[in-house]
Amino acid sequence: MSKKNAITPTREEDYASWYQEVVKAADLAEHSPVRGCMVIKPWGYGLWENIQRILDKKIKDTGHKNAYFPIFVPLSFLEKEASHVEGFAKECAIVTHHRLEKKDGKLVPAEDSKLEEPLVVRPTSETIIGEMFSKWIESYRDLPLLINQWANIVRWEMRTRLFLRTTEFLWQEGHTAHQTKKEALEEVFKMLGEYKDFLENFLAIPVIKGRKTEMEKFPGADDTYCLEAMMQDKKALQTCTSHFLGQNFAKVSDIKFSDEKGNLEYAWTTSWGMTTRVIGALVMVHSDDDGLIVPPKIAPTEIVILPVIHSDEMKQKILGFCEKLKKDLQNVLYHNKNLVVEIDTRDIRGGEKKWSWIKKGVPIILEIGLRDIENESVFMLKRFNLEKKSVKTQDFIKNIKKILDDIQSEMFEKAKKMQEENTQEIKSEDEFYSFFKSKKAGFAKGYFCLGPKIEKKLKDDLSVSVRCILEENFEEGTCIFCSKKTKTKAIFAKAY
Amino acid sequence: MSKKNAITPTREEDYASWYQEVVKAADLAEHSPVRGCMVIKPWGYGLWENIQRILDKKIKDTGHKNAYFPIFVPLSFLEKEASHVEGFAKECAIVTHHRLEKKDGKLVPAEDSKLEEPLVVRPTSETIIGEMFSKWIESYRDLPLLINQWANIVRWEMRTRLFLRTTEFLWQEGHTAHQTKKEALEEVFKMLGEYKDFLENFLAIPVIKGRKTEMEKFPGADDTYCLEAMMQDKKALQTCTSHFLGQNFAKVSDIKFSDEKGNLEYAWTTSWGMTTRVIGALVMVHSDDDGLIVPPKIAPTEIVILPVIHSDEMKQKILGFCEKLKKDLQNVLYHNKNLVVEIDTRDIRGGEKKWSWIKKGVPIILEIGLRDIENESVFMLKRFNLEKKSVKTQDFIKNIKKILDDIQSEMFEKAKKMQEENTQEIKSEDEFYSFFKSKKAGFAKGYFCLGPKIEKKLKDDLSVSVRCILEENFEEGTCIFCSKKTKTKAIFAKAY
Repeated sequence: MSKKNAITPTREEDYASWYQEVVKAADLAEHSPVRGCMVIKPWGYGLWENIQRILDKKIKDTGHKNAYFPIFVPLSFLEKEASHVEGFAKECAIVTHHRLEKKDGKLVPAEDSKLEEPLVVRPTSETIIGEMFSKWIESYRDLPLLINQWANIVRWEMRTRLFLRTTEFLWQEGHTAHQTKKEALEEVFKMLGEYKDFLENFLAIPVIKGRKTEMEKFPGADDTYCLEAMMQDKKALQTCTSHFLGQNFAKVSDIKFSDEKGNLEYAWTTSWGMTTRVIGALVMVHSDDDGLIVPPKIAPTEIVILPVIHSDEMKQKILGFCEKLKKDLQNVLYHNKNLVVEIDTRDIRGGEKKWSWIKKGVPIILEIGLRDIENESVFMLKRFNLEKKSVKTQDFIKNIKKILDDIQSEMFEKAKKMQEENTQEIKSEDEFYSFFKSKKAGFAKGYFCLGPKIEKKLKDDLSVSVRCILEENFEEGTCIFCSKKTKTKAIFAKAY
Repeated sequence: MSKKNAITPTREEDYASWYQEVVKAADLAEHSPVRGCMVIKPWGYGLWENIQRILDKKIKDTGHKNAYFPIFVPLSFLEKEASHVEGFAKECAIVTHHRLEKKDGKLVPAEDSKLEEPLVVRPTSETIIGEMFSKWIESYRDLPLLINQWANIVRWEMRTRLFLRTTEFLWQEGHTAHQTKKEALEEVFKMLGEYKDFLENFLAIPVIKGRKTEMEKFPGADDTYCLEAMMQDKKALQTCTSHFLGQNFAKVSDIKFSDEKGNLEYAWTTSWGMTTRVIGALVMVHSDDDGLIVPPKIAPTEIVILPVIHSDEMKQKILGFCEKLKKDLQNVLYHNKNLVVEIDTRDIRGGEKKWSWIKKGVPIILEIGLRDIENESVFMLKRFNLEKKSVKTQDFIKNIKKILDDIQSEMFEKAKKMQEENTQEIKSEDEFYSFFKSKKAGFAKGYFCLGPKIEKKLKDDLSVSVRCILEENFEEGTCIFCSKKTKTKAIFAKAY
């Protein structure tokens, strides 16, 4: 293995540039000529397809059905909920015309095609889906209504970074309506639980569960719950949210049902979502200075086979062996899906070829030359730790599921350890300030009275935000920042 | 079975209204409050998910990879290809601003957020994908480049109908680049072949393959190939298209590669797509006056079980039996997917419940009461022909795949027969005019010199269009409309 790293700069040298370089080296995505919009390339989209496949099953297994709603939200809909429109007004793509015409030789929006009411490209769908819910729900028998949508979303961002913050992104958004507050809250936590299982057991990203402060919650929600993850630069990234919307959207969209006694009541609604942003988290949690490392359970291709061919006469034999091996491996069912194996026969240098796969983070690379075939073995490289060894072919096939599962667990454990080692219990304001003035500060945990002025000051002074309020029952203690007694602890961090 | 039909009006009485009512009764989709945009409801979206699953596998098995490109196309991109922009300029949703602000108490697009260059919500992606291709392709080694995208599309339609013509719709669009004209043409036909297999063997819709005339082809293409289907009102519907783009888009997007000799050449490109419109075709080809009929291979749920419970004491026993049956059936692998079985325990009248499933078109409805359990049998209703009979439970499970496959073939054969019986060889202009002046005219087939003036006249006189130019080699004959000799035959019809 080369001493020099495949990615320049390294994480240590310049984390932000390292991230961009990993995304590029792994061929995940790139900027498009459209301001702030990205192109998700096949390897990156393959990750998203696996995320969709696994999450979609979870969403369906918990009783939700997929549907599709319009991409456009009329301005008057967005305006219905005051804090909702406040939250999104500054970042809307607005459609104002529906025809182009030539004017002085230039193509321009035709004046007479101006819309009476402008349409906003959906920044989220609560109001448009709420309108449909109000038509679909009449009686308690229609509840719960459990709907999910896979869609593209547009929020006009001024400063964009691939996957982490883009003007257009892909997501799923769950929208549900319930008869009681209790049921709606159960839904909020159920889906948060599904997200946690998905993040930890499939993406190998350990997360901290909690509630957002008033300042950080979703515009229009009563409460927003989230899962926060620690990146390798110790900053936090919100991986998903689950919102308890109370009766706010039911009231503005008139989602009413008649209960068992015939009384007309407002429904209780929720919404919850996960976006292509988690691919950014995946990159930042798992990659190293040689590129991306993909957890096996989410890899578009789990195993790549590199035939090592030095002469034309051995070509046939080696390729035949590789095809047979590929077939045997593709018959293995790994977590409800057949393994995907690729043979890379590109006509480029062997080293370049191998490194292209290391940078892409494929879990297992097999090099196969004549000697390996004679020894009935394969030369295996685990991307996760770059460990290399020769293994008997039959043992490799027999053990492949365990090999992959072990990599998966090790990746999770490594990330978990980093998160734990970089989370510090903080008792005083001084300690807090000096913690966050140190270069490699991670997560701070401590008592917090939830005072919004304090929250604002921490942002201004340190660029630190309250990531979440922990849900556990703590004994009473004293707020880090004031003398107030509280039972509430929070996680603080700099964040993406 | 009730004598009265579930759908009013019937096909005979008013085909257009019948279509709307079937879509509504099957709970497939409905109009949204956003002009021309539809909401695809769970049963309709379930159809689309199956279409996606099957078509996606075909697309991947033929070597294509999925990727994702921006929803916005800058105006200058659309303008690159003259006939392309001409074709789409009149139906574009145009984004002109990126922020909302309050002005005189009203929310309006903020003047200072006006975009320097307006963005068009993608009506198709040739130009934006072409721009990326020009960056990705350098040498012949990068070819062929085989990409597909699943996405939403916006074309501002003035008169919309659910699925058939909506402002927003969903589709897949394949975009490929090749080294030679021959390879590109092979790709065009290969994908048309995949579509044909999909339409005929999964949607049970027989299609006629052909080439579009100059007037009907895709704006910017050298040639457009299509598959035309006949609806039950004998009108034609274009189910998909596959375009040979020649070097047109390569030239305007600068997609060049250096060949084996180091010469810089323009690539040859193709694009091909199928949309949610095929769901409209599915409805119009297969449904009857009692609602939708879904071909088994595409059904979101193949079998629904209706427990017939007359007293509380038998409830446990019947539900237990149904659960066991459901489990046994769901273990059956039907065309690479486990059967989906639903037990409908809704607290509504039995007749209403059964008819709701008939209208939704679920292939098999099983009614199960105490007597059926005692007889070790199930009472089966085939939606396709409304045939009812009692079948031994074990036989039903053993034969279910054959039962479903037989329904599938019968549906195809029935549609095929209708298409053939309503396609007429036409020899003269008089015959042609009287054919299309009759109320139930279907497809006319005959020699055509491809004269654009004739084509225009047929549209004006009869609202009849050339659906496609047949690809077979015919002996020389005389054009229906003029005295010219030609070897070309075409299919003519009124169309959606």
